Amino acid sequence: MAGSSAADTFISPQALLAHWQGHRALTRRVIEAFPDDKFTTYSIGGMRPFSLMSVELLRMAAPTVHGVLTGDWKEGVKAEALPKADVLRLWDESTMELDATWPKIPVARFQETVKAFGQWESRVNDLVLYLVDNEVHHRAQGYVYLRSLGIEPPHFWERK
Amino acid sequence: MAGSSAADTFISPQALLAHWQGHRALTRRVIEAFPDDKFTTYSIGGMRPFSLMSVELLRMAAPTVHGVLTGDWKEGVKAEALPKADVLRLWDESTMELDATWPKIPVARFQETVKAFGQWESRVNDLVLYLVDNEVHHRAQGYVYLRSLGIEPPHFWERK
Repeated sequence: MAGSSAADTFISPQALLAHWQGHRALTRRVIEAFPDDKFTTYSIGGMRPFSLMSVELLRMAAPTVHGVLTGDWKEGVKAEALPKADVLRLWDESTMELDATWPKIPVARFQETVKAFGQWESRVNDLVLYLVDNEVHHRAQGYVYLRSLGIEPPHFWERK
Repeated sequence: MAGSSAADTFISPQALLAHWQGHRALTRRVIEAFPDDKFTTYSIGGMRPFSLMSVELLRMAAPTVHGVLTGDWKEGVKAEALPKADVLRLWDESTMELDATWPKIPVARFQETVKAFGQWESRVNDLVLYLVDNEVHHRAQGYVYLRSLGIEPPHFWERK
């Protein structure tokens, strides 16, 4: 059985965290690229300002990983459009929390099914990929906001 | 060694392909949601029309997976703004090609380093995740285009 599992690795948990933190470093730079006022107010097509999207990402990332480890699904920060400086501070706190929590997750846990926040039933690896994908999705919307404001966003392929 | 590798699985290659094909099904619906003319012409902030973004995704997906399997890095379709019907046809062809090619990739290959298209040195799993992320990134820009056109995009969380 160990042999067949060994033959079934696309990516390790450690490499996936590094991949995600690379994305999170880029998202942080996209947040930084917004003028303070546009961060909480600018919108296209009735969509949310980038502050609210960023806060959604904060509400999901560390609380989900905490829930995966402990089974305790506690709410994150409130869903409100925070100023850029506050979001950046919370972002850095989440970065440290993810680095501290993730390595404690037993590897087999990623193949288990959970009911996240008592609502969303998902395999843990799918749940984590949803967090990453959702971040890439909203960040890309931030790219369009920036472009339409005449601001050059950070390069998509830079993840440090 | 097999035991330690078994303890290192975040996701299997088979599950990762299913995850990607779920994204590709959603991207196909985003392509479909565009009015024919807007697909090849509509832009915000000087960005490319969604046709060109979709063609970029086509140029990367199947040719990369083919290269990973064979070491033969052949170019895909030309980088030009094709009509929606053509992109959808090519999309479906790529879907089938990915399903056919992916299972032939030896599992250890995902941990190897390649020089994709003679240019980009990357570990294979990072390269594949780049394709998925790049698709989510550009598709999200398509979401903003649709919203700004007054068109409701497909739900992000639906992947069938």
